[in-house]
Amino acid sequence: MKTVKKEIEKIRNEMNQDQYYLHCQYIMGILAVKIKIIGEQLVLRNKRDVIQNVSQRIKTPESIYAKMLRKNLEPEFSLAKEKLNDLIGIRIVCLFLDDVYEIAEMLKKQKDIKVIKEKDYIVKPKKNGYMSLHLIVEIPVCMGDKVEMKKVEIQIRTTAMDFWSVLEYQLLYKKNVKGADKVGKELKSYSDEIAALDQKMLKLRNRIESI
Amino acid sequence: MKTVKKEIEKIRNEMNQDQYYLHCQYIMGILAVKIKIIGEQLVLRNKRDVIQNVSQRIKTPESIYAKMLRKNLEPEFSLAKEKLNDLIGIRIVCLFLDDVYEIAEMLKKQKDIKVIKEKDYIVKPKKNGYMSLHLIVEIPVCMGDKVEMKKVEIQIRTTAMDFWSVLEYQLLYKKNVKGADKVGKELKSYSDEIAALDQKMLKLRNRIESI
Amino acid sequence: MKTVKKEIEKIRNEMNQDQYYLHCQYIMGILAVKIKIIGEQLVLRNKRDVIQNVSQRIKTPESIYAKMLRKNLEPEFSLAKEKLNDLIGIRIVCLFLDDVYEIAEMLKKQKDIKVIKEKDYIVKPKKNGYMSLHLIVEIPVCMGDKVEMKKVEIQIRTTAMDFWSVLEYQLLYKKNVKGADKVGKELKSYSDEIAALDQKMLKLRNRIESI
Amino acid sequence: MKTVKKEIEKIRNEMNQDQYYLHCQYIMGILAVKIKIIGEQLVLRNKRDVIQNVSQRIKTPESIYAKMLRKNLEPEFSLAKEKLNDLIGIRIVCLFLDDVYEIAEMLKKQKDIKVIKEKDYIVKPKKNGYMSLHLIVEIPVCMGDKVEMKKVEIQIRTTAMDFWSVLEYQLLYKKNVKGADKVGKELKSYSDEIAALDQKMLKLRNRIESI
Repeated sequence: MKTVKKEIEKIRNEMNQDQYYLHCQYIMGILAVKIKIIGEQLVLRNKRDVIQNVSQRIKTPESIYAKMLRKNLEPEFSLAKEKLNDLIGIRIVCLFLDDVYEIAEMLKKQKDIKVIKEKDYIVKPKKNGYMSLHLIVEIPVCMGDKVEMKKVEIQIRTTAMDFWSVLEYQLLYKKNVKGADKVGKELKSYSDEIAALDQKMLKLRNRIESI
Repeated sequence: MKTVKKEIEKIRNEMNQDQYYLHCQYIMGILAVKIKIIGEQLVLRNKRDVIQNVSQRIKTPESIYAKMLRKNLEPEFSLAKEKLNDLIGIRIVCLFLDDVYEIAEMLKKQKDIKVIKEKDYIVKPKKNGYMSLHLIVEIPVCMGDKVEMKKVEIQIRTTAMDFWSVLEYQLLYKKNVKGADKVGKELKSYSDEIAALDQKMLKLRNRIESI
Repeated sequence: MKTVKKEIEKIRNEMNQDQYYLHCQYIMGILAVKIKIIGEQLVLRNKRDVIQNVSQRIKTPESIYAKMLRKNLEPEFSLAKEKLNDLIGIRIVCLFLDDVYEIAEMLKKQKDIKVIKEKDYIVKPKKNGYMSLHLIVEIPVCMGDKVEMKKVEIQIRTTAMDFWSVLEYQLLYKKNVKGADKVGKELKSYSDEIAALDQKMLKLRNRIESI
Repeated sequence: MKTVKKEIEKIRNEMNQDQYYLHCQYIMGILAVKIKIIGEQLVLRNKRDVIQNVSQRIKTPESIYAKMLRKNLEPEFSLAKEKLNDLIGIRIVCLFLDDVYEIAEMLKKQKDIKVIKEKDYIVKPKKNGYMSLHLIVEIPVCMGDKVEMKKVEIQIRTTAMDFWSVLEYQLLYKKNVKGADKVGKELKSYSDEIAALDQKMLKLRNRIESI
């Protein structure tokens, strides 16, 4: 047990190096500007609200440690920087299903964003019902006289999917508790309902726009 | 037609007086602080996210003019300030149904917020299906050496209700168009579905919290 | 030595209570709104920039401990809350000398701000040359169903005084070092120069405004 | 007279095109992130505050029109975009004289910022006494699938220089008024005093740092 704590502390110390913190600040700042402009372009194009919320997080030492173990990798921060794609995560929540793909297209068109992986958990949700579009991208960090490419995971989802995922997140922390299994099944069934709702709302919006 | 434009311009000019603008800034600023603190208190108490979004708007001259006419009142700004409760509007969007009432309770408990009207459009939705809890409150504005009481409409709703209302808002601008009636009926039926979803998600959350 | 560390940790723990943090957030938020509105009123009245910068700080446990010792008081946080006026500090930096007093007047006129002490270190600088106008005020905190009065120290100064105080602050940490005394004397003489500069700039501004 | 108004309106209309506004937003957003990170790097390196204030402005139609006339150019917005370097302006205000050059160095080192002109009005002030370091830079705007280079004027100055320039700006609007000339001469003499003050404060800071 003591070793776990020590290893996590080691990761925390390496993350507290100024340079890592500044790199993260830089990347999150630049992407926030790009997403804001994309949002304003979509408002002008679609004549309605599109992006509802943008949030950012840096993966915690605890969470890095756990993920490295799950992947059977040494829990070293230097290795994590190489192997994990989601040390920096950005979440974009939008209103409608087609907004998700429109935002993704606009991100992919940016000359200085390189998409290295795309996972569509909307077309094919995770086993537990989780839905979102994930882009793993690389963006250049020009902080001093050198340029480094850094990976970021961008999650794009509708408000309905985001609502669902709040319960999934709460359940995650009660994984092995008695009763969790049954609740998990019910939560999964709601995921289908959320998907159906998103489809119906989208169709109705299209009809309103066409009358 | 020309008179309408002139009357709206008259309202706009009166609103552009510095004092009105500063009053609005003051009220929206003070309420934003109070709502932020309430949000943080609820995060601590419930150990999860509660308030998702807070937005504010000042009623436009066009909208003031239209509302005064609907109420058979002279479209004068001085009269509007007396008769309309929603010249300043604040919207709080939260995750779950019980959050709506918890936020309302905390606002009502504040010594310097006086609730003068409460309309529960969740228990009893509007004819078109609109759901939200509305509080009309008065708050003191201490800008110089005098204190004035100012009215504000606070709308509190869940993300699901907020999603629904985006379509309602779009439909509003196509009221008299052919086909709008049929779409309106369908939108109303979705309102029931949204209400049912909010109920189910709340129950599931309670079950997750209890395991 | 160990006891000092322990006592400071005790203060830190008491400050980390959620309620204290939320109280501070509330007060600083409300005052930031009030100062912003005062700033906009002065821009309208004087037709030029007035407030350059507003910053806020909560006194650190280390600094509370040191100040209680200097005052020959037990280093208890509950006692500090009673005896120290500057646990919460707000600094307003403005351009011209007369702005300092205009801002102070507008703060004092607010019905819900009660000035309990005023120290004019501009008319009568501190021994080391420090200049600023200090207001100790009490403002009501309406967080739940009760209202508490809380003390805040508001420092108002010109940019020139603020520039000077950066060096004073740096010197503070080298108090007992060899050579500090001589530098201190020189710094004090610059304080007079800063005061003269502020006077001259104010006079010139008045002449420009009158031509 | 009517023609002047019309020409300015024409410029305003072209500027109101969404694309121009979004370009400006993009550039100012990206540069704000870069300057913030540079500021944090300097705080870590110098162990004290460095950047005091960052502000941004888009040149107004009136000001574009006037500048084009002064340069004997047709007052067309398309030509202005080509010929004027300061349509977008960013001002960085820092504490000490050496901070000005340190900030400039860090901006110049950025791989994606291309300095196309540098004017040192500190070493060689303008006739009226104005001091600042000006960098004209080009930065890439990646908004959709294409990349365009855009020019920005970055002004870097100390708080003391910034204080002085407030009066210069006020005087600018009274250029041809009786008495302005005499005041202008006095203002110029204060510029020398400001320069001397900056030098003395820098020397004293260096002495404090070395004891």
